[in-house]
Amino acid sequence: MKMSNRISGFQTSPIRRLVPFSREAEKKGTKVIHLNIGQPDIQTPREAIEAIQNYDRKIIEYGISEGDVELRRAMLNYYSKFGIKDISEDNIMITTGGSEALQFVFLTLCDPYDEFIIPEPYYTNVATFANVAMVKLKPVTSSSSNGFILPSIDAFEDKINKKTMGILLCSPNNPTGHIYTTEELEALLALCEKHDIFLVVDEVYREFCYDGKTFTSVLNFEKYQDRIICIDSFSKRFSMCGARVGAIVTKNMEFLENAMKMAQARLCPPNVEQVAAAAALNAPDEYIEGVVAEYERRRNVLVGALQKIEGVRINMPKGAFYFIADLPVDDAEKFALFMLRDFSYKGATVMFAPAEDFYWSSGLGKSQARFAYVLNEEDLLLAAECIKEGLKVYRKKVMHL
Amino acid sequence: MKMSNRISGFQTSPIRRLVPFSREAEKKGTKVIHLNIGQPDIQTPREAIEAIQNYDRKIIEYGISEGDVELRRAMLNYYSKFGIKDISEDNIMITTGGSEALQFVFLTLCDPYDEFIIPEPYYTNVATFANVAMVKLKPVTSSSSNGFILPSIDAFEDKINKKTMGILLCSPNNPTGHIYTTEELEALLALCEKHDIFLVVDEVYREFCYDGKTFTSVLNFEKYQDRIICIDSFSKRFSMCGARVGAIVTKNMEFLENAMKMAQARLCPPNVEQVAAAAALNAPDEYIEGVVAEYERRRNVLVGALQKIEGVRINMPKGAFYFIADLPVDDAEKFALFMLRDFSYKGATVMFAPAEDFYWSSGLGKSQARFAYVLNEEDLLLAAECIKEGLKVYRKKVMHL
Repeated sequence: MKMSNRISGFQTSPIRRLVPFSREAEKKGTKVIHLNIGQPDIQTPREAIEAIQNYDRKIIEYGISEGDVELRRAMLNYYSKFGIKDISEDNIMITTGGSEALQFVFLTLCDPYDEFIIPEPYYTNVATFANVAMVKLKPVTSSSSNGFILPSIDAFEDKINKKTMGILLCSPNNPTGHIYTTEELEALLALCEKHDIFLVVDEVYREFCYDGKTFTSVLNFEKYQDRIICIDSFSKRFSMCGARVGAIVTKNMEFLENAMKMAQARLCPPNVEQVAAAAALNAPDEYIEGVVAEYERRRNVLVGALQKIEGVRINMPKGAFYFIADLPVDDAEKFALFMLRDFSYKGATVMFAPAEDFYWSSGLGKSQARFAYVLNEEDLLLAAECIKEGLKVYRKKVMHL
Repeated sequence: MKMSNRISGFQTSPIRRLVPFSREAEKKGTKVIHLNIGQPDIQTPREAIEAIQNYDRKIIEYGISEGDVELRRAMLNYYSKFGIKDISEDNIMITTGGSEALQFVFLTLCDPYDEFIIPEPYYTNVATFANVAMVKLKPVTSSSSNGFILPSIDAFEDKINKKTMGILLCSPNNPTGHIYTTEELEALLALCEKHDIFLVVDEVYREFCYDGKTFTSVLNFEKYQDRIICIDSFSKRFSMCGARVGAIVTKNMEFLENAMKMAQARLCPPNVEQVAAAAALNAPDEYIEGVVAEYERRRNVLVGALQKIEGVRINMPKGAFYFIADLPVDDAEKFALFMLRDFSYKGATVMFAPAEDFYWSSGLGKSQARFAYVLNEEDLLLAAECIKEGLKVYRKKVMHL
C-alpha cells in the first residue's frame, strides 16, 4: 500500500545492514566485540538505581510537559559547575532523550525545505530527524587529516542562504571525538549573528574531555544568548542510555514557547526515569571523574593499539568516546561485513561502524570507520588484534594485495 | 528571530489558556475540581510499582528500538483475551506513549498535504501531530443529539480524494465516550478497502466499556488486516500515564519496517517503564474489572447529577471516561473562565475543557464542554453542585437571562 515518500525513501544505514551478520556470528559461537555502538559498560550511578528502587508513588501520574521542576532545578546546580550561572529552570525543557530535543529543534525552527548547516562527519540520526521534518542538511566537510577541526568560517558562510535557519554542532563530537574550541564557537556565533541564524550545540558528551582539556559550553556565550540552543542528555554522562531523559536549554523564550506546543501534545517525558535522572545528579563528582579517567585509558589503549597497525591512520581524539580511523581498505563496509561473516581470531571478531553513514555528501568516508571505546581494556586489545589480523587476510584474499 | 510557521502558527488551546486562572484560584484557597484532564486517581497496579522497586539492573542500557521483547510477548497474552490471536511480537512496536504512536502513523503514511479523515469531536493532540507532519485533517462531524455515533459512510466517502491516506478513529472515544460498534467498524473497513486507504484505531480505552457492552477491536477484522493499524497505551488502563509506554499493532509489515526507521533514530522507548508495563500485565483481572466498575459508578454519578441541571443535555456515554455535555451558555470557554476566576461554591469550583478544542471545523461546540470523570464520587457530586450554582449566576450576571 502507498506510504509516505519521506519515510519509505530512507536508506537503511550500513550499520543496520550489518546487524544480522553480527547475530549470525554470535550464533556460531564467535565473540563479537561491539565497537559499533555507544552503549557504555560503565555502571549507572548507585544514586539513580536506588531512586528507582525507592520509587514510592502510588500512581505513575502525568508530569508537566516541560519536565519535573525538581529535575530542572537540580540541573541548575550541575550547570553552574561549567560556569553556566545565569539561567533558571524556565530555560530548561526536559525531553525524551536528546533525540526528542533534536526533533523539537528542527520542527520549531524549520518549515519544509528550510536548511541547517552541519559539519560532517556528523551524528547519523540527525539525518532521520531532518528528513522527518523535511529539513535539508547542508554539510561542511571536516577532515581526518587535521583531526576534524572546525572547517573555515568561510566554508560555513558559503552555505548560508535565505533558507538557512541554523548551524548544528556536536561537541565533544560523535563520531570524530573533536572538541570545538572557545575560538571556534566564538567565530561561529559571530557568523550566526551576522546572518541572524541559530547555533545549536549538542553537548551530551560535555564531561568527556581528555588530556586535561577544559570544555567550553555554548551556554557560556551570554552575548549571543538569543540564538543559542543547547541539547543535553543524561544517557552518556550517567550511563543511563535507556532512561530517555534529555533536555533543551536556551535563553530564547520564544523558541521554548513554540517547542512547548509539541511538548504539550506528547504530554510529558517518562516519570520514573526523571526521578532517576535527578538522583543521578547527586552522584559525587568522583563518579564522573572516574568514568572519564576510565574512558581516557580506553582511548589510549584502543587508539594506541590501532595506530600500530600498518596503514591505519588516527588523529588522537580529544573527547567523547568515538573516533574515526582511516583503514587501508577499499570499502569499510565490505571489510566490516568480512569481519563478521568470514573471519575470526582467537574465537572473536569485531563489529564497527563504516563511516560513510556519518557523511551527508556521497562518496566520502569510504575507507573510514567509527570506533566506540566503551568496553573494557582486555576486549579493546583483543579487538585491535582482530582488526590487525583481519586486515591482513582481507587485503590479501579480497583486495589481492 | 524567525521560526517555523508550522509551529509558531499553532493556536494555544482554550484549555491551556485556562490553566493560569486555575492556578490563581488554587492560590486563593479555592478547591479546583479538575474535570478537565484524564489523570486518573486510581492506583497503578501493585505489580508495576513493585517491578520498579525491584529493578536490579546495574546499567540502564539502550533497549531495542521496537521495544523489549519480554513486554511485546506479554502483550500477546493480553490481546488474546480480546480474541486477537493471530499476531506475534513482530506485529508490535512499543512506542513512547500512544502519542509517539500517533506521530509515527502520520509520518509513515503521509507526505505534506496528504489527508486523514477523522470524526469530530476528536482527541485534540491529534491536531498537533497532524500539523507537525503537515497532514491535513478532514473532519466528519458527529452529533451530540445521537450520542456521537459514527456519521454516515457517505459522509466519509465524500471526503475521500487522491490525497487521503486513512481514517483515524478513537474507540472507546475521547472526548465523546462513544464506542464504535462492530457494524460501524465493518462498514468503515469496507470503505477503506474500496479506496485502498488505512483504518487507524486508537484503542487505549479498550477496557472502559460500560453497561455490560463488549468491545470489538479493529484487530479482530482479519479480512482487512493489511490496512489496519491499532494504537495502544498502558496509560489509562493501568493508571500509569506518566510511564509513556504505548504501542502500534499491525499486520502490515511494510508499515512497521518504515516506522522502524524513525524508531531506530530515537533509539528506544524508556527502559524502566517498559519493565513496569510488562509487570502491569501480570495484575489479576480483578484489577481492571475493579477499575472499570469504579469508572462506571463515577459516570453514573456525574452524568446523573449533571443531567438534572436545567438546560444541560448529555447522552449517556458508553465508554472511556469522558463525555461531551451541551450547556445552557453562550460560550463554554467564557463560562469556564467565569468558573475559575469569578465563582466558588462551598469553597470549590470546577475546571472543565471547552469543547471547541475538540472540533476541527470552526464554530462548532461553542456551548459544549468535555468532562472527565476520573475523580472520586464525593468530588464529582460537589463538582455537579458547583456547575449547577455556577450556571445560575453566569446566566444571570453574564448572559443577563
